[in-house]
Amino acid sequence: MPGTRLDLDRIRAARRVIGREFLETPQFGCEPLGRRLGCGVGIKLETANPVRSFKGRGTDLVASGLASASSDGGGRAAVCASAGNLGFALAWSGRRRGLDVTVVASRSAVAAKLDRIRALGAELELVDGDFEAARDRAVEIARERGIRLVEDSLDLETCEGAATIGLELADGRSAFDAVLIALGGGAMATGVGHVLKALRPEVEVICVQPAGAPAMTRSWHERRVVTTDSMDTIADGVAGRFPIPEVLDDLLQVADDAVLVREESIVAGMRLLLRDAGLVAEPSAALGVAALLEDPDRFAGRRVVTIVCGSNVDADAYHRWVGPARLTAP
Amino acid sequence: MPGTRLDLDRIRAARRVIGREFLETPQFGCEPLGRRLGCGVGIKLETANPVRSFKGRGTDLVASGLASASSDGGGRAAVCASAGNLGFALAWSGRRRGLDVTVVASRSAVAAKLDRIRALGAELELVDGDFEAARDRAVEIARERGIRLVEDSLDLETCEGAATIGLELADGRSAFDAVLIALGGGAMATGVGHVLKALRPEVEVICVQPAGAPAMTRSWHERRVVTTDSMDTIADGVAGRFPIPEVLDDLLQVADDAVLVREESIVAGMRLLLRDAGLVAEPSAALGVAALLEDPDRFAGRRVVTIVCGSNVDADAYHRWVGPARLTAP
Repeated sequence: MPGTRLDLDRIRAARRVIGREFLETPQFGCEPLGRRLGCGVGIKLETANPVRSFKGRGTDLVASGLASASSDGGGRAAVCASAGNLGFALAWSGRRRGLDVTVVASRSAVAAKLDRIRALGAELELVDGDFEAARDRAVEIARERGIRLVEDSLDLETCEGAATIGLELADGRSAFDAVLIALGGGAMATGVGHVLKALRPEVEVICVQPAGAPAMTRSWHERRVVTTDSMDTIADGVAGRFPIPEVLDDLLQVADDAVLVREESIVAGMRLLLRDAGLVAEPSAALGVAALLEDPDRFAGRRVVTIVCGSNVDADAYHRWVGPARLTAP
Repeated sequence: MPGTRLDLDRIRAARRVIGREFLETPQFGCEPLGRRLGCGVGIKLETANPVRSFKGRGTDLVASGLASASSDGGGRAAVCASAGNLGFALAWSGRRRGLDVTVVASRSAVAAKLDRIRALGAELELVDGDFEAARDRAVEIARERGIRLVEDSLDLETCEGAATIGLELADGRSAFDAVLIALGGGAMATGVGHVLKALRPEVEVICVQPAGAPAMTRSWHERRVVTTDSMDTIADGVAGRFPIPEVLDDLLQVADDAVLVREESIVAGMRLLLRDAGLVAEPSAALGVAALLEDPDRFAGRRVVTIVCGSNVDADAYHRWVGPARLTAP
């Protein structure tokens, strides 16, 4: 059993709390993509739910815990920083459990994500700067109001929620040799990685991050927290500069590798997921396919699962990325 | 219990035969779509599987039955006429069960569908004319070779497979007042309709067909088979001219209404499913949203489920339909 902060019994218990909308998601082989990439490609699809990403698994846990605590006199409010998907999911789970949710996001966040957070009735505060500025402001708000701060990847529920994806992958439905996991803060990578290392130790756990936002990948390779001064990637969902030490410690236990991919590979990944699988993927959700494109020799003939973890895109940007080539010409 | 050719026990038994890839598909509310359309919109998603449509449910039943029979000395081969999705699914199920599959399609069928049938190793024969010409040729091939002819909607397995969608809808996960079902040959409408009338008789079963291929809808309204001389619709998956009498009889038992929608509404439906739900829908899969767009008063404030039944599109055509408006300008 890997020595992380996670626990298999708690992860199994999480499945009884998380809404059915988020569980037992589709898992299937995609031969057209596999033929093109020269390997077996399995897809774990986390976008066919009310919040269009895997984050509802974790936020349902957070909201359930808060609702139980508040019946004992605790507060029924929470704040999080988010590039959008966590905030959308927390707003959704919070509304279902009767919590007041505040989301702090960068003014430059994907507009569609911000619109969906507002539409659910959550309070949305926008800050100048990137995701790290939003994190700072969320900490302030939590302190000022005395409410729960939900910190993605640091808070165990966010990792445990994501880890339930690992239980579904490990349940024996299909055999696979490697899994490709988008790496941002690290909740999904540590969660899914923990479960697979415990139940399917033969599976290679590979994290994928954009070369334009490489802090956690560099940290994993150097085995110490490495920060960056800036970021430049379309994969907003995984863009952070300050890895969390506790999460890095966990990631060092469960990841076999962490790789960086180029922006053009991410765009190509989105195009292939649309064309060959009929799936809308936001940039972060195409990182796995990007990794397959960049290193075909590594994966040749192997059976690889990639988690398509979100589909919240701005329509115009998405058309630019995946539309006919003439649209993207300069 | 509605007096159709279907039987609830057989439909329940079908679930034990159909591959897990095709069962327990996502079912979730889509609030952005609901806000736009003024009603509660639930989505039943049948595209996240290896054949990108619901047809695998029926073809797994067909192939399983043939494989069992052939172990007793019967033939291990089947032929079907198809606009593409049935053929793709039969080729997939047949390969898994060791059957030789022949698909007859119109030369004008969607190229992506034909490519996927070929890629699975099925024999593909193209004919001049529309889907009805393919049906005629499939009958000939079955007779010449003495092999099983799989007739969509006439053969009970195709209806029973689709009917398992109805079991999932009826299982109590969420309450709804009406279901919108794409109507072509009628397998999905009679299958899902039978189950809902048996288990959720309060749910209104509404079939939706393109005005450009209205034969079955006209037949339902006139309570007798009405054929048409031609068809003109982008919804290739539901385009037929000769309704099957036995299927019409069943449909008259289980459908509460059958409506026709315009081509521009189908395109608008595809656009909304992409934008508001992040889902790729082929034209036939957008018929339900098209119906909501055309008759908002009828559905205002109600809880409606629409089955997104396929995502096999040609990439170029899809971009024309859903891309930025300037792409579709004359």
